[in-house]
Amino acid sequence: MRYALALFVLFLTFSVCGAEIQTKSVAYQDGDVTLEGFVAWNDSLKNDVPGILVVHQWMGLTDYEKNRCRQLAELGYVAFAVDIYGKETRPTNPQEAGKAAGTYKRDRKLYRRRLQLGFEQLQQQMHVNKNQIAAIGYCFGGTGVLELARSGADVAGVVSFHGGLDSPKPEDGKAIKSKILICHGADDPFVPTKEIEAMKAEFNNAKVDWQMIYYSGSVHSFTDADAGDDNSRGAAYNANADRRSWAAMRDFFEELFSPSSTNQNKR
Amino acid sequence: MRYALALFVLFLTFSVCGAEIQTKSVAYQDGDVTLEGFVAWNDSLKNDVPGILVVHQWMGLTDYEKNRCRQLAELGYVAFAVDIYGKETRPTNPQEAGKAAGTYKRDRKLYRRRLQLGFEQLQQQMHVNKNQIAAIGYCFGGTGVLELARSGADVAGVVSFHGGLDSPKPEDGKAIKSKILICHGADDPFVPTKEIEAMKAEFNNAKVDWQMIYYSGSVHSFTDADAGDDNSRGAAYNANADRRSWAAMRDFFEELFSPSSTNQNKR
Repeated sequence: MRYALALFVLFLTFSVCGAEIQTKSVAYQDGDVTLEGFVAWNDSLKNDVPGILVVHQWMGLTDYEKNRCRQLAELGYVAFAVDIYGKETRPTNPQEAGKAAGTYKRDRKLYRRRLQLGFEQLQQQMHVNKNQIAAIGYCFGGTGVLELARSGADVAGVVSFHGGLDSPKPEDGKAIKSKILICHGADDPFVPTKEIEAMKAEFNNAKVDWQMIYYSGSVHSFTDADAGDDNSRGAAYNANADRRSWAAMRDFFEELFSPSSTNQNKR
Repeated sequence: MRYALALFVLFLTFSVCGAEIQTKSVAYQDGDVTLEGFVAWNDSLKNDVPGILVVHQWMGLTDYEKNRCRQLAELGYVAFAVDIYGKETRPTNPQEAGKAAGTYKRDRKLYRRRLQLGFEQLQQQMHVNKNQIAAIGYCFGGTGVLELARSGADVAGVVSFHGGLDSPKPEDGKAIKSKILICHGADDPFVPTKEIEAMKAEFNNAKVDWQMIYYSGSVHSFTDADAGDDNSRGAAYNANADRRSWAAMRDFFEELFSPSSTNQNKR
């Protein structure tokens, strides 16, 4: 069992050595609105592999998410960054970002529809095993991956990095089929304790299999190297928390997708 | 960097393939009291490797800790299970265990001395790199590894599994040189929220580099397969939390001991 897992890690790590990471933009529609996602994969793939949906921060789909897709492709996955806002909405400052994110945080039905469209795009990508999908999201996108899980989507697991955890409809916790990993800055001032407690209660009531990791000395945006290093601003990069949360995500994916996985969705 | 880490994991995983795990009891003294620890290593070691101190549950040093030592030896470490109570004190029921553990929980100076003696025994074992020591502890031993850290011992990192987190002297947090990982059952009834908050405050005041993972559906003793499966008793095994916390420990050790580690003790 231990060696099986080590071999699986090896397979994922070295099967892509020397391979070219390929990327492309993917246009798709929500009615009249054109959305433009981004996919990354490695060229040497012979078989289907798990697909990872990447949900963007409040600034919309930027190079940040594209680089995360590349990193995931280097690990052997096919990664698709969803475009929630639409091609015409690319915030250029926090005010615009707040306005765009607010629209979807208030209208969860719309948010879920856009997430579902991205999910379907991912499933249609080459070399994606349609039955092995996970989702990760940052900040606004952390809220998104939980929303995707609450929608009852067939997603094996979701990872929130410094995401908002609130739900307007806690009863939707019962629809969750996926395992959940929350990576959280212990000093994040944007996620109130009350919100964390409500999330835990929601998940516990629904017997969801969840884990939550607190990283000391970390605030919002701890994975974003462009967020500066001033914790007093409430959002800042933390190299330790970034590296550790990425490792935790990798362990989580290995559990979800390794051949010896029991793939039990409920705890 | 990624490949360096993968190679390091490989080294640890496969360098011991086919090797025999060796074990032996180790007698040592605290004045007139004879202590009897246990060490496990693998026979094929050529160079010095990190040493891991294992601190036992309230039942004292049992087969449980010895098996953890064997598992650690399989990972490529030298593992030493300390004997806190002494050779003559091997509780046979919860009443005796409570009495023995209580002695050390009340007398932290004595507890620290016994921990320190184990630490020195570990450093003296063959193939142990004296400058690369970590400690793990379960339940009563979880309290122990934090106490070892609070004593100012030169330990790179400590991991508590369902351990008690209280400190009679929170100001000792300032002496901590090690990184800390707390693996905690989200429903553990034996560790009050107040105790968790006090620990976080202590560590934050001292700028300790800590992480804490909450495992859903888990109570006390979640790593102990003999603890049954009835969460309502407050202590029960949870296979998910056991496997995940072990994986988290491995990541933690890789960070502490991999050649590319920055080895910064403070965050």
